[in-house]
Amino acid sequence: MAVILITGGARSGKSKRAETRTRAFPGQPVYVATAEAQDGEMEARIAKHRARRGTDWIEREVPLDLAAALVASDGGGARLVDCLTLWLSNLMHAGRDWEREVDALAATLSNLKSPVVLVTNEVGLGIVPDNALARSFRDAAGIMNQLVAAAADEVEFVVAGLPMKLK
Amino acid sequence: MAVILITGGARSGKSKRAETRTRAFPGQPVYVATAEAQDGEMEARIAKHRARRGTDWIEREVPLDLAAALVASDGGGARLVDCLTLWLSNLMHAGRDWEREVDALAATLSNLKSPVVLVTNEVGLGIVPDNALARSFRDAAGIMNQLVAAAADEVEFVVAGLPMKLK
Amino acid sequence: MAVILITGGARSGKSKRAETRTRAFPGQPVYVATAEAQDGEMEARIAKHRARRGTDWIEREVPLDLAAALVASDGGGARLVDCLTLWLSNLMHAGRDWEREVDALAATLSNLKSPVVLVTNEVGLGIVPDNALARSFRDAAGIMNQLVAAAADEVEFVVAGLPMKLK
Repeated sequence: MAVILITGGARSGKSKRAETRTRAFPGQPVYVATAEAQDGEMEARIAKHRARRGTDWIEREVPLDLAAALVASDGGGARLVDCLTLWLSNLMHAGRDWEREVDALAATLSNLKSPVVLVTNEVGLGIVPDNALARSFRDAAGIMNQLVAAAADEVEFVVAGLPMKLK
Repeated sequence: MAVILITGGARSGKSKRAETRTRAFPGQPVYVATAEAQDGEMEARIAKHRARRGTDWIEREVPLDLAAALVASDGGGARLVDCLTLWLSNLMHAGRDWEREVDALAATLSNLKSPVVLVTNEVGLGIVPDNALARSFRDAAGIMNQLVAAAADEVEFVVAGLPMKLK
Repeated sequence: MAVILITGGARSGKSKRAETRTRAFPGQPVYVATAEAQDGEMEARIAKHRARRGTDWIEREVPLDLAAALVASDGGGARLVDCLTLWLSNLMHAGRDWEREVDALAATLSNLKSPVVLVTNEVGLGIVPDNALARSFRDAAGIMNQLVAAAADEVEFVVAGLPMKLK
């Protein structure tokens, strides 16, 4: 089934594009949020996304066990995962083996029946960050994006709300 | 009339590309600078741009009231606005309601007779900035770029001096 | 002969793409490393690249005199230069006149018999860096990328392992 990866910068219109692609599939859409509302800034963003999306989505909060959640929700409507970068950050904070988890996600994506639209961020196009932790994170994010893009049927890069087809 | 948005990173060749697009229209071109020469680094950059551009441009310094300036200069040659990111920064420093000003700009763009070429920056493709002010700015810049891109007839993304057509 | 520039963000799959493009040319490929293994982080990355690349490459360490090295190795197999951004950083640290060196490289590229594939980084798509040195570097990198792209026969922008043709 269709696996679609939507990548781009912060506030590039990735989530909106991903919602459009998800809604184009039949059935009730499933919103898989990797975010947990832990501060006001994040809460405000989550509320804004929900207001735009509408209330006809099934909502799931999945900060960590993404592959399992996609298997569990398979067979119904299309899933929108927003976003992989935050999921990666959650894995690292929880001390999980992110490389193993990313490999497992990529393998799972190839075996699903219902469509999945995944949102991710490009974070490696600025100046090299000063601190080693930020460098590790952007390396990991880049590796994750390559692996998920390789497993996807379609990949789009969104700039200023406009998608470019990469695959 | 033609509204063209040229986006890209720092030193990607955006301004040069925008000059080429502006010169392709008939009439005397108008250079709308949103920069004010406040320090040596900025002065040097302004002087360099002017030297490349040539002296046959009408020059306007418009740090804040961009929509009004585009209406006032309408009916003549094509306008080159360089750049929107700095305009946004000026609005914020001046305590203006940037969301209202960006909406007003987008509405104005749809009603002009003479062409407008607008330069903007992509600033959201690096690691999440440490400080909240920088995060707010990159969010605002991304939202502005999406709104102006939606109002534009053409959008180009410039990398290493080479344009990719987004719209 | 073919001059190919591969640009993209950190961990975008640029090096792998450049290896594929280099191997597609006949003859024994030459790996021109601009990196010197000065710390553990860099050593680990160099070792990883070498393991992926295979052992059938001629290897050269060229931190500074890149144009001369390309002339000296001309007439044999295709050269892979990885990467220009680090070369630029080396030139600056060594107190060289980087603008002159970049011009000389661009001029040299037009006169080679054997193919050259060059890897570079996009570093100007994040928030403006706080410190002046980082701003100077990203300006220089942007200028270099424009000049080398202008001298190249082909330019690709790699995102999530997937190339977009710019030229």
